[in-house]
Amino acid sequence: MTTSPPHEAPPPYDVASPGTLSGTERTRVRRLSERAATDRQALYDVLDAGRICHLGVIVDGCPRVLPTGYGRDGDTLYLHGSTGAVSLRAGGEICVTVTHLDGLVLARSVFHHSMNYRSAVIYGRPRLVTDPEEKLAGLRAIVENLAPGRWDAARRPTRKELAATAVVALSLEEASVKVRQGPPSDDEEDLGLDVWAGVLPVREVVGDPVPDPLLRPGIGYSK
Amino acid sequence: MTTSPPHEAPPPYDVASPGTLSGTERTRVRRLSERAATDRQALYDVLDAGRICHLGVIVDGCPRVLPTGYGRDGDTLYLHGSTGAVSLRAGGEICVTVTHLDGLVLARSVFHHSMNYRSAVIYGRPRLVTDPEEKLAGLRAIVENLAPGRWDAARRPTRKELAATAVVALSLEEASVKVRQGPPSDDEEDLGLDVWAGVLPVREVVGDPVPDPLLRPGIGYSK
Repeated sequence: MTTSPPHEAPPPYDVASPGTLSGTERTRVRRLSERAATDRQALYDVLDAGRICHLGVIVDGCPRVLPTGYGRDGDTLYLHGSTGAVSLRAGGEICVTVTHLDGLVLARSVFHHSMNYRSAVIYGRPRLVTDPEEKLAGLRAIVENLAPGRWDAARRPTRKELAATAVVALSLEEASVKVRQGPPSDDEEDLGLDVWAGVLPVREVVGDPVPDPLLRPGIGYSK
Repeated sequence: MTTSPPHEAPPPYDVASPGTLSGTERTRVRRLSERAATDRQALYDVLDAGRICHLGVIVDGCPRVLPTGYGRDGDTLYLHGSTGAVSLRAGGEICVTVTHLDGLVLARSVFHHSMNYRSAVIYGRPRLVTDPEEKLAGLRAIVENLAPGRWDAARRPTRKELAATAVVALSLEEASVKVRQGPPSDDEEDLGLDVWAGVLPVREVVGDPVPDPLLRPGIGYSK
């Protein structure tokens, strides 16, 4: 079943890696390695197109995966949370994954059903941001990634709000990108089957703005 | 910043939990606990509306988060992968998270920017499915969750394909669901600001089927 984890490793057979964004063992994409992207721009593209990442931490010896916002500034990813948050206090390495589902791949065989996707996996030890200027820059990256222009449009954080918010920085040094696009990869001998095969494209759509019921009259939405 | 991890715990203050789907400490939603859902149907709804989960495992002492397909059958979640896959071989507990982004919440203050979402987090020790009948049922659940009807439409797995595929079962016993919907929650004193506030709705759209270039003529797509 090729819908299985895109970043999965290792395969039942050994394949040479076409390369990754970093040279570590865990970012070497071993399963279906033809799907691995190697350039840094591919990483930026996947990250910049997303709004939610899935943050993996270890709490009490068990993995915990939480959705959260993020922002990128150069080769640094910023995450934030309440200063009391377990996931940001846990210490140790974290893993951040961003995934875009682009299509449902319907093959002639059940086995070759798959998904078209773009995904990035980043590993590293987060650094708590204590420098006030970097903290603001990190928050700005997070808010701008959510909705461009809002950092300038909305009221900036107060000292109290800043104190209640923890910002951590994660280097993009150790990362891998994997992409699958295109039609199904059916076995030669299945091509004659009387089964529809192809892709159902999937995309995320942002709809028309819904004003807050408390919005004062006369304030229009501008992107 | 309330875009922070929805399932985050614990908060700087202690709040009583309105209840979770299970009685364990880690599924007790502590941060913004008014967003916790308590009934099992809410869990099913989040899972059944999704196609990709993020699977968290521990590999060499570090968290790893991988996107993968899944399927639900009653109170069991099924995942699959290559039989050699590290994430399924790792042993120990896993965490599976499914998240739907429903909206970008633009507040009058940067601090109250947020997201509307539905998410489910499941913890447990996966069980390798060895019973052939359950293995087929698990694969069926996974394929049907990807695209309903395909289990019957496409060629079923061969013995060889089945042997190459590992299926694991995860009980839905220990899970939490968190939901945020609605307009921004600005501070009272910000309501008078000259800043647009509201929600940009986000939804996933499945487009028109794109036939495989190798599709034999005369085979139409039927849902």
